[in-house]
Amino acid sequence: MSSVLDLLKSHRSIRKFTDQAIAPELLEDLFIAGQSAATSSFLQGSTIVRVTNPENRARLAELAGNQKYVESAAEFMVFCADLKRAGNYCEEYGKPFEGNYTEHFIIATVDVALMAQSLVTAAESVGLGICYIGGIRNNPGPITEMLQLPRGVYPVFGLCLGYPDQNPECKPRLPLSVIVKQDVYNETGDKEAITQYDEVIREYYRTRTGGGHGISWSEQVASLLSEKSRPHMRDFLAGQGFTFK
Amino acid sequence: MSSVLDLLKSHRSIRKFTDQAIAPELLEDLFIAGQSAATSSFLQGSTIVRVTNPENRARLAELAGNQKYVESAAEFMVFCADLKRAGNYCEEYGKPFEGNYTEHFIIATVDVALMAQSLVTAAESVGLGICYIGGIRNNPGPITEMLQLPRGVYPVFGLCLGYPDQNPECKPRLPLSVIVKQDVYNETGDKEAITQYDEVIREYYRTRTGGGHGISWSEQVASLLSEKSRPHMRDFLAGQGFTFK
Repeated sequence: MSSVLDLLKSHRSIRKFTDQAIAPELLEDLFIAGQSAATSSFLQGSTIVRVTNPENRARLAELAGNQKYVESAAEFMVFCADLKRAGNYCEEYGKPFEGNYTEHFIIATVDVALMAQSLVTAAESVGLGICYIGGIRNNPGPITEMLQLPRGVYPVFGLCLGYPDQNPECKPRLPLSVIVKQDVYNETGDKEAITQYDEVIREYYRTRTGGGHGISWSEQVASLLSEKSRPHMRDFLAGQGFTFK
Repeated sequence: MSSVLDLLKSHRSIRKFTDQAIAPELLEDLFIAGQSAATSSFLQGSTIVRVTNPENRARLAELAGNQKYVESAAEFMVFCADLKRAGNYCEEYGKPFEGNYTEHFIIATVDVALMAQSLVTAAESVGLGICYIGGIRNNPGPITEMLQLPRGVYPVFGLCLGYPDQNPECKPRLPLSVIVKQDVYNETGDKEAITQYDEVIREYYRTRTGGGHGISWSEQVASLLSEKSRPHMRDFLAGQGFTFK
């Protein structure tokens, strides 16, 4: 089944979809494939809210930073980390609830990502395209209200799914030597490798944006990490019961 | 390529491996497949430390809670969330480093999980078995020291990889109705569905452990969330620069 490797290597985000719906049986199959991913301590700490209401889809597109494909994709779902479902049983069995440690946050967040990525691979294997929407964390409060997410649940990211109406190239990744280390973390050679890679990414953007910005990888990520990124997240999460004890 | 769905649905953790090594070319292919997964804001905030030193493998097995397969699997790797690689360029370009927000922690942690899960699917597609090792968070300090992880990097989980020397069943998952919600979070019917599922899991453990514990899912997760799980994580992460601002 070497084609699975080719499938995985050919991932790119899709932001333009045809009108074709996803058959309900297929969608169910995708959920099951996602759910079959590993789950830490067997918590199964994920909930998927599939958004079908058109007004909510339009509002979500806006709240996620005006990403129109959130509205127009065949499917849009919000992947939530969920400690409530399991936490209900603390009360049921007369145990104290202590699920507000940093560790629980990690477990649930990782659970969600593993499930989503298996669902994504399943989807791509049948010709669907996907786009993760981290932008839902721009406005987690209104989104949480819209989806009626209770305490113990937070929206990690969204996912657009549909049949692709575009065929973008894959975006080149960092050289493996930079990503994979043997026995110890060691940055020898990374700077040179990244300098070369920066040129690849400049060129990638230049050719895609018609002579446009041509920004390098290192410039892009330096900007990302020099900004107070979504500084509302801590308080928002605390309000949902994730207090990083 | 409907077999990809079958592959994903057939996941189970493997904890007993043959002595067969993984060919270096295949291993490289798995890394590339993993790296091709989506990455938030193009951060590529993951580093894999592949542990080959036998003494370190033995020590890691111990530190992860005496999980012998950490030592005996053909490969063991530690998946790290990495904000240092990108953060280096804040200094390089004279920008302030602000990468210690909760949001950055989420971005990097999700990046790692997406990459790992694609690598896992690639591995399983060629007949390898895997086991995620959350147990490395039992002792993140000594492990961080061993792997020489600098500030800005933390070990999220480990992964054992090798050719399976066992063939366990898949572990039944929660009913889809409990996991997937439409438009709003709604627990109607969940309790009944979980009660039935609890019996499935009791039976699963009874038959696997030879009339042994027969604990239900809800009992298992209630225990998990009534414990102060790895309470050292917050301070450990703060020491690595993840301060949840």
